Amino acid sequence: MPNSTINNVLWTAYQKGQTIIPFGNVATYIPELGKARKNALGVTMLTKDGRIFELGDTDTRFTIQSISKVISLIVALETFGISTVFDRVGMEPSGEAFNSLVELDLNSNKPYNPMINSGAITIASMLLGHADFESMLEKTRALCHDPEIDLNEEVYASETANMSRNKSIAYLLESKDIIYNDVDESLELYTKMCSLNVTTKSLANLGIILAMDGLDPATGQQVIRKRVCETVKTIMLTCGMYDGSGEFAVRVGMPSKSGVGGGLLSVADDKVGIGIYGPSLDEKGNCIAGRPILEYLSKMLRLHIFDPDDIVTGMAE
Amino acid sequence: MPNSTINNVLWTAYQKGQTIIPFGNVATYIPELGKARKNALGVTMLTKDGRIFELGDTDTRFTIQSISKVISLIVALETFGISTVFDRVGMEPSGEAFNSLVELDLNSNKPYNPMINSGAITIASMLLGHADFESMLEKTRALCHDPEIDLNEEVYASETANMSRNKSIAYLLESKDIIYNDVDESLELYTKMCSLNVTTKSLANLGIILAMDGLDPATGQQVIRKRVCETVKTIMLTCGMYDGSGEFAVRVGMPSKSGVGGGLLSVADDKVGIGIYGPSLDEKGNCIAGRPILEYLSKMLRLHIFDPDDIVTGMAE
Amino acid sequence: MPNSTINNVLWTAYQKGQTIIPFGNVATYIPELGKARKNALGVTMLTKDGRIFELGDTDTRFTIQSISKVISLIVALETFGISTVFDRVGMEPSGEAFNSLVELDLNSNKPYNPMINSGAITIASMLLGHADFESMLEKTRALCHDPEIDLNEEVYASETANMSRNKSIAYLLESKDIIYNDVDESLELYTKMCSLNVTTKSLANLGIILAMDGLDPATGQQVIRKRVCETVKTIMLTCGMYDGSGEFAVRVGMPSKSGVGGGLLSVADDKVGIGIYGPSLDEKGNCIAGRPILEYLSKMLRLHIFDPDDIVTGMAE
Amino acid sequence: MPNSTINNVLWTAYQKGQTIIPFGNVATYIPELGKARKNALGVTMLTKDGRIFELGDTDTRFTIQSISKVISLIVALETFGISTVFDRVGMEPSGEAFNSLVELDLNSNKPYNPMINSGAITIASMLLGHADFESMLEKTRALCHDPEIDLNEEVYASETANMSRNKSIAYLLESKDIIYNDVDESLELYTKMCSLNVTTKSLANLGIILAMDGLDPATGQQVIRKRVCETVKTIMLTCGMYDGSGEFAVRVGMPSKSGVGGGLLSVADDKVGIGIYGPSLDEKGNCIAGRPILEYLSKMLRLHIFDPDDIVTGMAE
Repeated sequence: MPNSTINNVLWTAYQKGQTIIPFGNVATYIPELGKARKNALGVTMLTKDGRIFELGDTDTRFTIQSISKVISLIVALETFGISTVFDRVGMEPSGEAFNSLVELDLNSNKPYNPMINSGAITIASMLLGHADFESMLEKTRALCHDPEIDLNEEVYASETANMSRNKSIAYLLESKDIIYNDVDESLELYTKMCSLNVTTKSLANLGIILAMDGLDPATGQQVIRKRVCETVKTIMLTCGMYDGSGEFAVRVGMPSKSGVGGGLLSVADDKVGIGIYGPSLDEKGNCIAGRPILEYLSKMLRLHIFDPDDIVTGMAE
Repeated sequence: MPNSTINNVLWTAYQKGQTIIPFGNVATYIPELGKARKNALGVTMLTKDGRIFELGDTDTRFTIQSISKVISLIVALETFGISTVFDRVGMEPSGEAFNSLVELDLNSNKPYNPMINSGAITIASMLLGHADFESMLEKTRALCHDPEIDLNEEVYASETANMSRNKSIAYLLESKDIIYNDVDESLELYTKMCSLNVTTKSLANLGIILAMDGLDPATGQQVIRKRVCETVKTIMLTCGMYDGSGEFAVRVGMPSKSGVGGGLLSVADDKVGIGIYGPSLDEKGNCIAGRPILEYLSKMLRLHIFDPDDIVTGMAE
Repeated sequence: MPNSTINNVLWTAYQKGQTIIPFGNVATYIPELGKARKNALGVTMLTKDGRIFELGDTDTRFTIQSISKVISLIVALETFGISTVFDRVGMEPSGEAFNSLVELDLNSNKPYNPMINSGAITIASMLLGHADFESMLEKTRALCHDPEIDLNEEVYASETANMSRNKSIAYLLESKDIIYNDVDESLELYTKMCSLNVTTKSLANLGIILAMDGLDPATGQQVIRKRVCETVKTIMLTCGMYDGSGEFAVRVGMPSKSGVGGGLLSVADDKVGIGIYGPSLDEKGNCIAGRPILEYLSKMLRLHIFDPDDIVTGMAE
Repeated sequence: MPNSTINNVLWTAYQKGQTIIPFGNVATYIPELGKARKNALGVTMLTKDGRIFELGDTDTRFTIQSISKVISLIVALETFGISTVFDRVGMEPSGEAFNSLVELDLNSNKPYNPMINSGAITIASMLLGHADFESMLEKTRALCHDPEIDLNEEVYASETANMSRNKSIAYLLESKDIIYNDVDESLELYTKMCSLNVTTKSLANLGIILAMDGLDPATGQQVIRKRVCETVKTIMLTCGMYDGSGEFAVRVGMPSKSGVGGGLLSVADDKVGIGIYGPSLDEKGNCIAGRPILEYLSKMLRLHIFDPDDIVTGMAE
C-alpha cells in the first residue's frame, strides 16, 4: 500500500481520536499526572518494512505507566522461563478493574495475570536480585530504541506519595506467600518502571519488535525469544486493556496495553507496531482516543488478528 | 506438508491425549451424560485445502452442549447485527466458572459474554420469534455438513429434569430486564441446542468454515459474513474455555469452544478446523485430552495465532 | 408510668416519624404497592399489663410482606424443632441486601438466615406438607388477634406477576438441594404469606406475644414455646432489618422486622409489642419513619435490650 | 442461687468444654501463639453481687488479642462520641471472616464494624494523638482490675514479623481515606493492644463493668458511660464472634468477644461478667470450648438476653 494511502488513513483515524477527547478525563489520582495537556494526541506507526507514519504529539514525553508491565513480563520470561513465571502469576483475564483486590482475596492462589497491578508487582518482586532498576532502564531503552528514556522524578515522587493501594496489594501478596522479596523494594522497582518517560516513537519501536517475533528490524538481531513474544502478545490481547480487553480484542483485534499516563502500545502481528499518546482517559483508565484510532486503522489496514489479509506490508508500492 | 507427516503429528498428539484421560472425569450432573465411555477419544482435522485427518472415535455421536453457543451466536449476529447483540450481552471474559451467578448479580448490566450460560440464554431468548428449533437445527446441519444431526431425546429429557441452575440464571436475567421473551421457551431452545448429537467430523466442518472466514470450502459459498466470523473467533479465543480461556490462548493459541459432553471445537485461522471428542473432563469442565492434543498440534503444525508460519497448507506436498 | 406520659412520648415520637416521611419513597417494584398513600403513618403499642396506645392510621390495612417471615419461622420452629430448621437455614446476618444472590452463590451450604428471601423461601418449602396456606392464615389470625386478616388478591396477583428474582433465588436453592419440594408451590405459599392484609394492631398483638415469651396476654395461653420466642427474637435483632440490622440494634435495641408494604413489627422483651405502618421507605427498604419513632420510644421508655430499667410496666400509675 | 448450685453448674459446663478441646487447634499463624498448651482451660465468673466462681487455668497469662477491640472501642466512644466513631466505622455484621478484604474493597465507605480487623485498625488510628500505648495500657489495667497486665514482648515481636495481612488492610484503608494518621503507628498501637497479657480474671472484671452499665462494682465509680456500654454490648452481640456471631447470639445470647489467643469475654447484662481461656480454637478462630460452656451457663443460669428470668443474682442464698 502506498505511503500516501496509509497517511490518509492515519489522518482520518487521528480525526476520529480527536473528536472523542473531550469525553474523557486526565488521570488525577496523582497530582503530577493531572498536569497533562488533555488535548494532546500523537500517533506513531512503524511497519515491518521499515516505514514510519506519524501525526501530532509524537515528541512529547509522558510516563509509560502500566505499559511497563509488558517490558517487565518480557524480562521475567527471558530470565526465568515461562513455567516458572506462571507458577506465580496466572494468565486469566479477571473481569475486574486493574486495581481490584477482590479477586485476589477470594482466589487465594495467585494474581489473575501479569497485566494487573497485583501480577505486575509479583513480577517486579521476582526480578529483584536478577535485575535492578538500572538494568531494566537499559533494557527499556534498547527495546524502544530510545536512549533518552529516563526516570521522571516528579511523577515518581508523586506516585510514591500516593501508593497506598499498591502497598495494600503488595502486603496481601506477601501474606499469601506470593511475593517473598522485600515489599518496599518490589514496589520501588515497580513504581520506577511506571515512571519512565517515553514517546509514541519509543512505544512503536517496542511494538514492531513484538510484531516481528523478537527480531529487531533496525539491527537484524533477535532480542526477544519467539516463544516469549508469542506469550506476551497473547496476554496483551486477552488482558491488556483491563476489564475492556474483551471488547478491544473484538473491535480492534490487536494485542495492546494502555497506561494511565495516556500511552497505548499496539501490535499487529507480523505487520506494524503502534504507539499512541493521549492523556484523556475513558472510565476504564484507557486512552479514550485509542480505540477509535485503532479500530479505524485495524479496519482500513486490515490489522485484526482474524483478518487474513495484509495490505500494509503485503502490497508495497 | 505431506499427509504422512501430519498423520504422524496427529498420532503423537493423540497418544498425549490418551495418557491424560484417567486424570479427568465424565460429567455426572445429569445422569445421561454419566453414561459416556470415559476412554473414548476422537480427533478430526480438516485443512483449508480439503484434506481430512482423523483418528479414534470419530463416528461416535455425543451431545454438542456448550459448543452450540457458537452456532447460536453466529445466527444472532447474522440476524440482528453486532451492535444489537452486544447491547444485550458483553464481550468480556469473566474470570468466573461457566455457571456463576455472582458476576451477573453484582454487575447489573448484562451477562459478561455469550460463551457462559447467562449470555447464551440471553442469545436464545433474542432468537425466539426469529428462529425456532427447527430452523436452528437446519442451520446446524448445514454448518456441520451433517444431515444426521438430531435431538438426543434422552439427554434433552435429562437436562430438562436437571436445569434448576439455568432456570435460576434465566429468572435473574428476566428480573434485570435482560431477557424479555418467555423464560421457559428461551430455556427450551437453549437446552435443545445443547442436546444435539454431533461427531468430531461435524465440529471440524464448522471449524473450517470459521477458519475460512465464512466460506464453505465444500460449496464455495459464503455462508457466514466475514465480520461475524472475526467476532466469533475473537470471543472463542478470549472466552471459549471458561475460566481457563487465558491459559488456553497462551498455550494453544486457537479459538476454541468446549462442551461438557466432551466435545471441543478448535479453529486455526485460515488453516484448519478441528473437532475433538473425549468425555473425560478436567476440573473446569473442558475435555481433558483437548489441551495436550491441541498444544502439540499447535506447536508442530504452527497453528498459534501469533505464530506467523503456516506449514500445514503453506507447504503442500 | 402514667398513660398520659406515655401518650406524650408517643406523640413526640410520631412527630419525629412524620418529619422524615418526605425523604423516603413508596415501593414501586410491584404496581399495587405503588398505590399506597405515602404520608400514611400509624403506630400501635401494647404493654404487658394490657394497655394500648395508638396514633394515626391504625385501621388501615396493608400487606404484611416480609414480616410474615417471622410467622413462618415461628411455625417452622414449632413444627420441626430448632436443629432441623437450622440444618437448612443459617442464623448469620449477611451484610447484604435482602434479595442478594451473591452470598448464596459463593457460600454453597445454605441461606444466611430466615429473614432474607432465600431463607424464607426455604422455610416455606419446608412447611409444604405440614402446613398449607389456610392453616398458616389461621395461625396468623390467631397470633395477631385479627380474624379479618385475609389475602390481598390484587397485591398477590401483582407479586406473582413480578417475582422473577424470587424465582431465580428459588431455583438456585433447588440446584443446591436446599429445597426439595415443588418450587412453584413453595413460592406460592411464600408469596401468599407476604400478601396478607394486616393493621398496626395486628402486628402489635403479635409483638406482645413475642415480648411475653409466647404467652398470649389476652387468653392467658402459651401459644408459642419460650425457646422458640427466644430464638425468633434473637434472629429479628441480628437480621430483621436487612443490612441495616446492626445499626438498628445499636440505636433502637429492639428485635424488629420490616416489610416493603410499610409495616414494622417491634418487640421490647418482657415489656411491649409495637406495630407501625408507614409506606415511605428508606433506601434499604425499611419504613423510614420507623427508626426515629422507635429510637425515641426506646430512649424515653427505656426499651433497649441493654437498658436495664423498665419504666413502662415497671412503674404502673 | 446458692454458691454450691452455681459451682455445680460451672463444673458441668467446664466438663462440656473440656470434652470438645481435642476437636480444635491452637492458632499457628504466628509462632509464639503456637506454643500454647492446647488442653489449658480456665473460667472465671463474677456476679453483680460481688461473688466469684472459678475453675481451671485462671492464673495463666495469655494475650488478649481481638478482645482488645472492645477496650479500644470503649476508649474511642468515650473520647470522640458515638456519632464521630460511627462516621468512620460501621455497625453491621459482615457475614465474612475477621480478616476479609472483600467487603471493604467492594463497599468503599467504611469497615463493616469495629470488631473486625479493618474496623479496629481504623479505631486505633483515630486514637493516635488522643491516647498512646501507655495510656491505653493504664486504661486496660483499670478496667480489668489487673495492674500486672503488660506487653508480651515475644508475642508482640512475633505479630510484628507476621502482619502482612493487617498491613494490607491498613493501606487499603489509607487508600480510601478512612485512616489519616500514620499507618505504621496505627498498626503498632493496634498490635501492642493485641499483645497484652491477661488472665480470665482480668476479662471477667471487664465483663462485670460492662454488665453493670459502666459502674465498677469494686469501687462504686462510673468508669464508662451507660450509653457507651449499651453500644459496646450491642456490637459485641451482633459482631463479636466474627461470622459465627449470629448463631452465638441465638444459642448463648450474651454479648461476647473472642481472641485467637484463646480468650473469651462474655457479659450477661445486669448479671455477670465471664472470662474464659482455652487456646484450642474452632475453624472460625473462636475458643472451641467457649460455646458449650457458655451455652450451658446461659441455659442453667438463665443468662440469655431474651430469658426474662434472673436466677443468679435474683435469688440470693
